[in-house]
Amino acid sequence: MTTDLSKTATDLFETMRATNPLVHCITNFVAMNYAANVLLAAGASPAMVHTPEESGEFAAIAGALTVNIGTLSPHWVEGMIAAAKSANDASKPWVLDPVAHFATGYRRDVIAKLLELNPTVIRGNASEIIALAGGQSAGQGVDSGDPVEQAEEAARSLATSQKVVVAVTGEVDFVTDGTRSVRIAGGSPLMPKITAMGCALTALVGAYCAIARDQAFEATVAALTNFAVAGGIAANSANGPASFMTAFVDGLHNLDAATFHQNARIEAL
Amino acid sequence: MTTDLSKTATDLFETMRATNPLVHCITNFVAMNYAANVLLAAGASPAMVHTPEESGEFAAIAGALTVNIGTLSPHWVEGMIAAAKSANDASKPWVLDPVAHFATGYRRDVIAKLLELNPTVIRGNASEIIALAGGQSAGQGVDSGDPVEQAEEAARSLATSQKVVVAVTGEVDFVTDGTRSVRIAGGSPLMPKITAMGCALTALVGAYCAIARDQAFEATVAALTNFAVAGGIAANSANGPASFMTAFVDGLHNLDAATFHQNARIEAL
Amino acid sequence: MTTDLSKTATDLFETMRATNPLVHCITNFVAMNYAANVLLAAGASPAMVHTPEESGEFAAIAGALTVNIGTLSPHWVEGMIAAAKSANDASKPWVLDPVAHFATGYRRDVIAKLLELNPTVIRGNASEIIALAGGQSAGQGVDSGDPVEQAEEAARSLATSQKVVVAVTGEVDFVTDGTRSVRIAGGSPLMPKITAMGCALTALVGAYCAIARDQAFEATVAALTNFAVAGGIAANSANGPASFMTAFVDGLHNLDAATFHQNARIEAL
Repeated sequence: MTTDLSKTATDLFETMRATNPLVHCITNFVAMNYAANVLLAAGASPAMVHTPEESGEFAAIAGALTVNIGTLSPHWVEGMIAAAKSANDASKPWVLDPVAHFATGYRRDVIAKLLELNPTVIRGNASEIIALAGGQSAGQGVDSGDPVEQAEEAARSLATSQKVVVAVTGEVDFVTDGTRSVRIAGGSPLMPKITAMGCALTALVGAYCAIARDQAFEATVAALTNFAVAGGIAANSANGPASFMTAFVDGLHNLDAATFHQNARIEAL
Repeated sequence: MTTDLSKTATDLFETMRATNPLVHCITNFVAMNYAANVLLAAGASPAMVHTPEESGEFAAIAGALTVNIGTLSPHWVEGMIAAAKSANDASKPWVLDPVAHFATGYRRDVIAKLLELNPTVIRGNASEIIALAGGQSAGQGVDSGDPVEQAEEAARSLATSQKVVVAVTGEVDFVTDGTRSVRIAGGSPLMPKITAMGCALTALVGAYCAIARDQAFEATVAALTNFAVAGGIAANSANGPASFMTAFVDGLHNLDAATFHQNARIEAL
Repeated sequence: MTTDLSKTATDLFETMRATNPLVHCITNFVAMNYAANVLLAAGASPAMVHTPEESGEFAAIAGALTVNIGTLSPHWVEGMIAAAKSANDASKPWVLDPVAHFATGYRRDVIAKLLELNPTVIRGNASEIIALAGGQSAGQGVDSGDPVEQAEEAARSLATSQKVVVAVTGEVDFVTDGTRSVRIAGGSPLMPKITAMGCALTALVGAYCAIARDQAFEATVAALTNFAVAGGIAANSANGPASFMTAFVDGLHNLDAATFHQNARIEAL
């Protein structure tokens, strides 16, 4: 299975470059620029469209939708809901990033509404996934207070109950659809020191879902592998978090299929 | 004419450094940071002010206004309209960037309202300009689906009917006021792989308009030449899109008039 | 006193790395990404939360609040006010950054409301501080039109009348609580050529206040010293403003206490 997933991920990586999918992103103010540059470097075409006056219409045009709740307000939540409903109606995949959803009452209300709209994939850090599955997390703000391993059971439970692919990202990533599960190694310890890295990854999961609509599990594995491979390579030339950011985007752009396949570290469980 | 335009552009480049014009930018969330850094590096003083409670007042203070419709919402549109009206009342030039104006019904309504307010310059990619002139473009999202050459006739027609300077940017840029037309070569194939590069260029067109109020054509040519020259130089030291971004801003800052003039590739048509 | 302040600043620098304080930032769209990366590199955990539906609740959770008025709108102002009130109720320090508060009538109204909520620290450029103290500044937009020295008296007067720590930043920074005053040297002439550098510094003042709640003066001095030291080091490897930005964030991340203490240039007055 490992070999198969690496091969599938590499194939999807090549399809991304060849097809340049349009990805509708509703993400936070902190992440917008970096997420857009990450998508462009990886071969996708990002579009940031949030207002309810057009987010529904645009979600039906794009290949996939991604929704990140980092910097919320009621107007944006309306736009997210309109877009998610439209993605569902048009049978387009959509990816949810539940940033610090446990932090305030408002955030808990919003995440409950979004979960009802059946996301295709949820990507979060360990604290976010534990709390989403109803557990007690150590998170306070946007940074995780828990290691990924402690979120694996929560992720499986959430995947099963919500019929969703769940990705928990951290030192070693974990992806499950409730039945199949993998761990993905790679990346760099600098990645959590850079803001919006997780948000950009969520956007990339959306891009992979756009080119593999009925294979959300494989698409998510491919996106996380893409990040892990490019992150591992970027770490070699970085002097700190900011030069890592630069090396990472350059590396995403310069990555080829052979290097991708060779550096993919996907462990089926 | 080529020689004259290169000389005029170089003169304007020097005036920019000497006068540090205040440029009022209403741009999208993705572009704000990069556009501000590009203006600072080029010698202008950017200010991002969008709310209708103050955008009109501020437009009258600044040397020029730029409006980019990348990430719209009704509140921002009100601010754009108030600012454009005020710029007109104060005889300040204003530049319109019609990002993906064809993508949704909402966007088409907004662009129609903004066009009625007589922008001084419109800068877009080929798909945007073709669609603005009423033609059929291949664009879907924010990236162009058409080459610049195919937009030249549309640009001329738009310039004439709207009495506006039109800039179509891409591999080779095209600028026209309906009567005079030029092509500007330079830059780098990496430029479309970086988000907000076009938006930052729109802001720079505004900066040049601020120092050459009654010469919108010459100002636009100078701004595009500045980008093309700095982009060509940055390409020499870039390893990918992110290191290009860094080299480009550094290059804008370090550029001198002699290098500007020497590398300007303006072809009068 | 100089030695004491350098020692205290170095101690706070070490506490920052050890305790990773959660900092609630309500800042402008231009600054959000850079400010977040600066805080992460310096050892803090930033969270951007602006909507009034949750900003009050979150301000009580975080270690400190920072409010920057760069890109205002009524909805954001409501969020700022709710957060500042909540910070006060919870005895959490809050830092105000009065970006271009003199530029429009709307901005003047907003700053008056925020000043009534008793900020712990105000950080601005010379033009902003002079205007805040009721004087005549040369500023128009977000860039200072006045040197720091000309704002020292205004800063003292503001500190005394408002019972607030005031930091004026520029070529040589000035910090006063009305009684004690210091100048802090260092940094680089490239710093004003980078957007959001001051906004990021305001966020860092908040981070230091979070770990030294009853020592706002010392915390502010430590934050400014951290910036000045890292800026001075980054200048050695920068080729322009963008590579400076990268080197600066890398440098903040790589800085150790010995280098911090050795390069601190705090002059008590």
